[in-house]
Amino acid sequence: MSERVHNFNAGPSALPRVVLEQARDEMLDFEGTGMSIMEHSHRGAAYERVHNEAEALLRELLGIDPSSVVLFLQGGASGAFATVPMNFLRGCADYAVTGGWGEKALAEAQIVGDARDCLGMQRRYMHVPPPAAHTVRPGSSYLHITTNNTLEGTQYHRFPDAPVPLVADMSSDILSRRVDASRFAMIYAGAQKNLGPSGLTVFVIQRAFLDTARTDLPVIFRFATHAAQQGLYHTPPTFAVYLMRGVLRWMKALGGVDVVEARNDEKARVLYAAIDDRPDVYRCPVEPASRSRMNVVFYLPSTDLDERFVKEAKGAGIVGVKGHRSVGGVRASLYNAVEPSDVAALVEFMKDFAGRVA
Amino acid sequence: MSERVHNFNAGPSALPRVVLEQARDEMLDFEGTGMSIMEHSHRGAAYERVHNEAEALLRELLGIDPSSVVLFLQGGASGAFATVPMNFLRGCADYAVTGGWGEKALAEAQIVGDARDCLGMQRRYMHVPPPAAHTVRPGSSYLHITTNNTLEGTQYHRFPDAPVPLVADMSSDILSRRVDASRFAMIYAGAQKNLGPSGLTVFVIQRAFLDTARTDLPVIFRFATHAAQQGLYHTPPTFAVYLMRGVLRWMKALGGVDVVEARNDEKARVLYAAIDDRPDVYRCPVEPASRSRMNVVFYLPSTDLDERFVKEAKGAGIVGVKGHRSVGGVRASLYNAVEPSDVAALVEFMKDFAGRVA
Repeated sequence: MSERVHNFNAGPSALPRVVLEQARDEMLDFEGTGMSIMEHSHRGAAYERVHNEAEALLRELLGIDPSSVVLFLQGGASGAFATVPMNFLRGCADYAVTGGWGEKALAEAQIVGDARDCLGMQRRYMHVPPPAAHTVRPGSSYLHITTNNTLEGTQYHRFPDAPVPLVADMSSDILSRRVDASRFAMIYAGAQKNLGPSGLTVFVIQRAFLDTARTDLPVIFRFATHAAQQGLYHTPPTFAVYLMRGVLRWMKALGGVDVVEARNDEKARVLYAAIDDRPDVYRCPVEPASRSRMNVVFYLPSTDLDERFVKEAKGAGIVGVKGHRSVGGVRASLYNAVEPSDVAALVEFMKDFAGRVA
Repeated sequence: MSERVHNFNAGPSALPRVVLEQARDEMLDFEGTGMSIMEHSHRGAAYERVHNEAEALLRELLGIDPSSVVLFLQGGASGAFATVPMNFLRGCADYAVTGGWGEKALAEAQIVGDARDCLGMQRRYMHVPPPAAHTVRPGSSYLHITTNNTLEGTQYHRFPDAPVPLVADMSSDILSRRVDASRFAMIYAGAQKNLGPSGLTVFVIQRAFLDTARTDLPVIFRFATHAAQQGLYHTPPTFAVYLMRGVLRWMKALGGVDVVEARNDEKARVLYAAIDDRPDVYRCPVEPASRSRMNVVFYLPSTDLDERFVKEAKGAGIVGVKGHRSVGGVRASLYNAVEPSDVAALVEFMKDFAGRVA
């Protein structure tokens, strides 16, 4: 087998090696049952244990008490952009658009009902406004935020104190740091960054908020449907849940959220330092106070050099650092499963590259 | 590693051993890229090749020409129960309800618009009505059928000649037999029976039918959105698509649909013969002309004996034969990946069991 590369993909993204090794070892025979976990019925005892353990671990790591339901569903954050307003938008809702994904969430909500952007930022979204800038309309059903902007490389470091239920798309920074989950009426996240493979979406919904949901929509799109059947209303993406269980076990074994957060802070500190050390070669356009710990975006002096950087990085076993097609440049995603040694390799390459091109 | 069991699960269900072995062997390093396929970007070259090969194989095996689009999405058949009428129901639509899943499809459509059951069968749906029984209303947007009923063990062996677009839920018998795909305006199928793991849903839609779709719904639920971006509007369930590619490769290597169909016919023939040989112990309630080649449902003289059968079968390495909770009894699902040797083991057990309890 060839060497594993340094994977900075923005999602789908790196998974902990130990999780992949276990998946490999159990592929033909899950715990002596004579089949893969993905060949088990989703209503059988073997899968039920996996599902329940994944939920228990998520509750423990994220700090979710029984006043919230936890659901493992399909459709991605893009699906939630539609189902959230379908369930919860009554009258009007407010969206804090701080990046391209927030734009998409708002656009879907505007098809469903009266939704507006409460910030009115200019593109390219190089910072996240302070809490006080988040004004909501009287009677708004909820305020929607994107806690981390993967495209722009910005992140909320202080959440707004909304007078209405706060709904958060945490796809790209869930469990990367300690948050007070009780502040959020609803949290959702596509799994393919910090939790597992693509095809799985996690929802955490306060029961009191869930009770406000509309019922005049297809049964499959009502969160209450899934909550009433412990997420097994229809067949869940069982193998993805199994892999997420592995990722959550790995997080817990590492020491839990606080240890992971400290690890992530240090990874980001080292990488931003490497950028700031060479302002002649690297430039991070994001305001320092809004810099993301998950997605580090930077530019070289020309698009030619951006391209050369990405190409030569690949030659050095460093992959996934091409910026999103909508913004260009370079982007390194530092999700939980990215090891400090991966960041060290990237920083080493950056120093070498800067020495050669400056 | 323990022996692999004889897996008759109704879905998620057995996968070809060779597919699991390849997934195992490539888990940490897909084709020398130094990462799992699930750690690759869905917009990168490695995944793109997998996705495109899966689509090409599906087109080849199912006989789909360029006048139809093929999409690999999330949400299951249960999701399609809602999105199909959301996209295509204008005025009214007709549903041929031949089982429990058809009931669910109709119920979702009735939330969306004017949908009715065109058959009016009595429960427990022990047969599939002939084509002429399928009457549709003037101006109906489409006729929806369920080609195979997993709960009841019935299957269409002749499809209706509808004067309106024919939409088929083929979740439990897609690619199990040759069908004339051009007769269907739309085919959809959850992957977890004949195609792969759960969390992936295949859609085949004639472009002319797609052009009739509504546009006044959330972007994510419009099939046209996904068609315009080759199914990559948002992140697909990449690992599930990879596994499906393996299943389709396996089917092709086996000889294609005709060989698989002959294999499936023989598997079903052997099992139904074992039932009919012992009418004192086993009874299939389905009318012979409507018997399913995919899901074989039968009952013993008492629920006690049903339970004993299921329990003792498990002791013999035969799993997944408990009937669905809504109908009870025994059910053996004979999807493509179930080997003739699995069926032989089941039949052997049935003979032995009958000898002991008769």
